[in-house]
Amino acid sequence: MENSLKQPIIILANGAFPTHHIPLDILKKAGSVICTDGSANTLNAYGMTPFAVIGDFDSYKEPKLPFSGKKILESDQDNTDLEKALNWSLENGIEKITILGATGLREDMTLANHYILLDYYDQIKLAMVTDHFTITCHKGQKSYDTFPGQIISILPQHFNTEVSTTALRYPLNKMELHPSAKAVSNQAMGASFSVDASKPILIFRGHTEN
Amino acid sequence: MENSLKQPIIILANGAFPTHHIPLDILKKAGSVICTDGSANTLNAYGMTPFAVIGDFDSYKEPKLPFSGKKILESDQDNTDLEKALNWSLENGIEKITILGATGLREDMTLANHYILLDYYDQIKLAMVTDHFTITCHKGQKSYDTFPGQIISILPQHFNTEVSTTALRYPLNKMELHPSAKAVSNQAMGASFSVDASKPILIFRGHTEN
Repeated sequence: MENSLKQPIIILANGAFPTHHIPLDILKKAGSVICTDGSANTLNAYGMTPFAVIGDFDSYKEPKLPFSGKKILESDQDNTDLEKALNWSLENGIEKITILGATGLREDMTLANHYILLDYYDQIKLAMVTDHFTITCHKGQKSYDTFPGQIISILPQHFNTEVSTTALRYPLNKMELHPSAKAVSNQAMGASFSVDASKPILIFRGHTEN
Repeated sequence: MENSLKQPIIILANGAFPTHHIPLDILKKAGSVICTDGSANTLNAYGMTPFAVIGDFDSYKEPKLPFSGKKILESDQDNTDLEKALNWSLENGIEKITILGATGLREDMTLANHYILLDYYDQIKLAMVTDHFTITCHKGQKSYDTFPGQIISILPQHFNTEVSTTALRYPLNKMELHPSAKAVSNQAMGASFSVDASKPILIFRGHTEN
């Protein structure tokens, strides 16, 4: 790993900047923030400096204050800036990342960024934290901490994904899920729930109201 | 079709209320607005009255002013409110709908609403208009009006979707697309482009800046 990278490591994407206290607290406690292109300017305006900026620099503007971070130019048009940042992270041996700013604004990027979780989940430990949810991806059996009434949504990528759950208000028992809206707005019953899935699924865990 | 339904017909979902002039103009020119649950309150606050409200009424609040529209209670937990509104529209012979307010806020619903376009595209003529894009779904060959520099993103649902395009900055020639970020932020070159896809795809056409 790059010697100067400090944990925890955050990637700030160029969607809507966080406003909820949960993603903002994660950002404030970051050891290193890697920005995708123009999000470096947004972070700068928030009063923080990125460890590195990665992208094709088509939306980046040179800041007024001196910027001592790394600038990593990746012009490959086949990858989005978030993919470039994740590829760089993999090459540098980073094992765990929280992604902020990945949703809101452009819906095509929001959708693409969800798919990125499905593309990278088995290579690096990832969580995407938005103003509404903590979004993760996994395959097989996994348990999560919850609170009673917490919104839990489960969305697969592949057709015929078999999903079973425990401790949700509307239980799923070997249910064949498709990439559709059939498991949105479920609710946790207690302090944890578990889910078993035959193919990778996205899990959306809602934040507390306050 | 319901006698009192007037064209054009809009479904207002319960995501972020439009702020861009393109979706707002569509809303203002609506003949009938069908609201999903709590979006009736948002529409009311905007000074308009829905033709009907459809959903499980878990987020709807009785308005202060008298409401003369239809209230259609559908409690089925297996369908989202937007699916309920579309099913009701199909049952009532509606052939064309523009969906507003379907994105922003909750990312699980935003994702589910994209999938709904893929579920219903061959049953009813649908366009989803957001603050950033007009989003449609089709399979096979189709042409679209564009302007030079317009952002065009193409996202498939199925793996191995073969896609070819004309008149885009980064041409696709029988390219095998997967549900991933490989065809985001393309650009139209002129007044139209066409795309041919072996399986259904989502097309995101960016709005003008002003």
